[in-house]
Amino acid sequence: MNVTVHGRTRHYRTVTFDRAHNAVLLVEQRLLPHEFKIVVMRNFRETAAAIRDMIVRGAGAIGATAAYGLAQGALACRGNDLGKFSRQVEIIYQTLKAARPTAIDPVNAMETVRAAMRPGKTVEERQALALAAAEEFAEEDVRHCEAIGRHGVRLIRNGMKVLTHCNAGWLAFVDIGSATAPMYAAQAQGKKFHVFCDETRPRSQGATLTAWELAQQKISHQVIADNAAGHLMQRGEIDLVIVGSDRTLGRTGEVTNKIGTYTKAVLAKRHGIPFYVAIPLSTIDWKLKCGFDIPIEERHESEVLGAWGVLGSSKFKVRGSKLVKRTYIRVANPTSGARNPGFDVTPPELITGIITPAGIFKPKELWSQRHELGFGR
Amino acid sequence: MNVTVHGRTRHYRTVTFDRAHNAVLLVEQRLLPHEFKIVVMRNFRETAAAIRDMIVRGAGAIGATAAYGLAQGALACRGNDLGKFSRQVEIIYQTLKAARPTAIDPVNAMETVRAAMRPGKTVEERQALALAAAEEFAEEDVRHCEAIGRHGVRLIRNGMKVLTHCNAGWLAFVDIGSATAPMYAAQAQGKKFHVFCDETRPRSQGATLTAWELAQQKISHQVIADNAAGHLMQRGEIDLVIVGSDRTLGRTGEVTNKIGTYTKAVLAKRHGIPFYVAIPLSTIDWKLKCGFDIPIEERHESEVLGAWGVLGSSKFKVRGSKLVKRTYIRVANPTSGARNPGFDVTPPELITGIITPAGIFKPKELWSQRHELGFGR
Repeated sequence: MNVTVHGRTRHYRTVTFDRAHNAVLLVEQRLLPHEFKIVVMRNFRETAAAIRDMIVRGAGAIGATAAYGLAQGALACRGNDLGKFSRQVEIIYQTLKAARPTAIDPVNAMETVRAAMRPGKTVEERQALALAAAEEFAEEDVRHCEAIGRHGVRLIRNGMKVLTHCNAGWLAFVDIGSATAPMYAAQAQGKKFHVFCDETRPRSQGATLTAWELAQQKISHQVIADNAAGHLMQRGEIDLVIVGSDRTLGRTGEVTNKIGTYTKAVLAKRHGIPFYVAIPLSTIDWKLKCGFDIPIEERHESEVLGAWGVLGSSKFKVRGSKLVKRTYIRVANPTSGARNPGFDVTPPELITGIITPAGIFKPKELWSQRHELGFGR
Repeated sequence: MNVTVHGRTRHYRTVTFDRAHNAVLLVEQRLLPHEFKIVVMRNFRETAAAIRDMIVRGAGAIGATAAYGLAQGALACRGNDLGKFSRQVEIIYQTLKAARPTAIDPVNAMETVRAAMRPGKTVEERQALALAAAEEFAEEDVRHCEAIGRHGVRLIRNGMKVLTHCNAGWLAFVDIGSATAPMYAAQAQGKKFHVFCDETRPRSQGATLTAWELAQQKISHQVIADNAAGHLMQRGEIDLVIVGSDRTLGRTGEVTNKIGTYTKAVLAKRHGIPFYVAIPLSTIDWKLKCGFDIPIEERHESEVLGAWGVLGSSKFKVRGSKLVKRTYIRVANPTSGARNPGFDVTPPELITGIITPAGIFKPKELWSQRHELGFGR
């Protein structure tokens, strides 16, 4: 999406590949929203470190980064010995996989690249196939988000007020995003609307990443405390909710997403406000049969007991020579502990529709549409 | 309630009066939860400044502080001229009233003191009557909270998990508190239970004040993000909700309280979890006929866009010679704004019962019980 740097607006992707320098270029997400910087990963070990250190985060974005990282590593291999090349690729694969061991997206992405390399008869051919497959993986991520935007755009009408939770924007994908895709498509059609971003405690991705994205795209928006959505719905100030999902159960239509999503769905139901979930196909889980079986990560209590930010009234910086320093403050009583579940599960009866690249479906329709939605590919 | 200072546990009130020095003693609430300190207001102007500067906050606490401040000012008057005395009392009254112009509690409290002074035939008599009335005002606040505890204690059973929102604890009153009163009473009966404190963004009174109170009373508790309550209810981890109220409509049973209360009531209803509101009689508004008419204060956006806390992992301090320095950090995107409604309104159908000093009532019963509840006193 567009980012304005030194007064000049340019299009960026979260992840791109520089063939000339065999480098992976990433938006340094740990500096956002206070500073925008593109960082260069010059070899696969640096790319793995970027995944590990959360320079890049979000399912689609880390998938593409791993795919590019595998191609990058393969391209750097010297010699014509196919056996030696394959052993090197295995090391690269394992290194990138170990960078975020619980994430499924890097593994899926690298499997795709590895499968595409196999027909190559020489090292050179396999290198070319790897890069082409990585590029295609990234392009498909973009096409899927574009398709979500095409299907979802009709939900946003002129004058609407839209609520979103956490960040399911372009920063979490290669470009465009999932929950944000209908918004960016609506803006492209000249529609006027306003977005409320739940701040999304405890990690505040709504206040930091989503608000930054919308500000860069010049979409009218305001941050709200997670507590405020109920009141705004009660006063008729929210017309539509669109969120993303980390995992959607294809068999039941249950949606796992950032903690607090379920609460917004319950409120929307009470007020008769449409509640949509926008997802790429890769986040559909066709195996699990019950949302109660989804493991809910309990994160560190320090997230709830404090907050990260910058001191004073910092201005937004662009590619500064010194990094913006983010500071942790302890907010809560120093002798108290916290519970910190990271995700919750929203049942299908609270969800108006699921916006996929293949169209908008009722949650219970996913299973009957499973072949169209890529199950078994 | 009890506070442990240098390893010694002592009973404190939020507001007390020192006759010997004609001084109002206050818990310095701006330092909590990081430091506990009693500050001495040596004249009515200092007492007014303490109300203005939020050293003391909470309906019952600022009411009692204003009552004591009026008595303190009256006691400092010299001479026997009743006319001159009355003019001085008027100045004291106006000074204390101007300290928090939108709050109704200081005015109600001072009216009580002023009415009590009137029968006095000499300056000395009126001074004595003023102090007695201020003391009685504070004692009544304590008695009402004790009565809330007596009525509400049966709601808390052994092994329960109780959710509360914001701070309606002893710090907001002279002692004991409203929403906390049943908890403190249950503890006194030896019941074991666990409290989840909503952090209560944007001002985090749950994470700071309520968590501190419960820690001092050694009640098992954890802070949670406001987003987490829905998930915990879904998993059967919350058995009861008790909150306070800033204003309850006697005619309709609608409850105004800190932003986010309505959301918790909606969630509790969905999960069949009892939702109780604990209130002293002074917060019942017998005039307003519709919750939609309650003015909802829109507070400064900086509260939502950042957070206050202490740097690093500060230990809890007691009466340190240097004040703990609280720091503001900007969390949100620097180019985004925020909406910040301070309160919301919960309709009566979501409220299981209202715990008052006169007993527990259904919200719709308040009007029929109005004489018992002090309407027209």
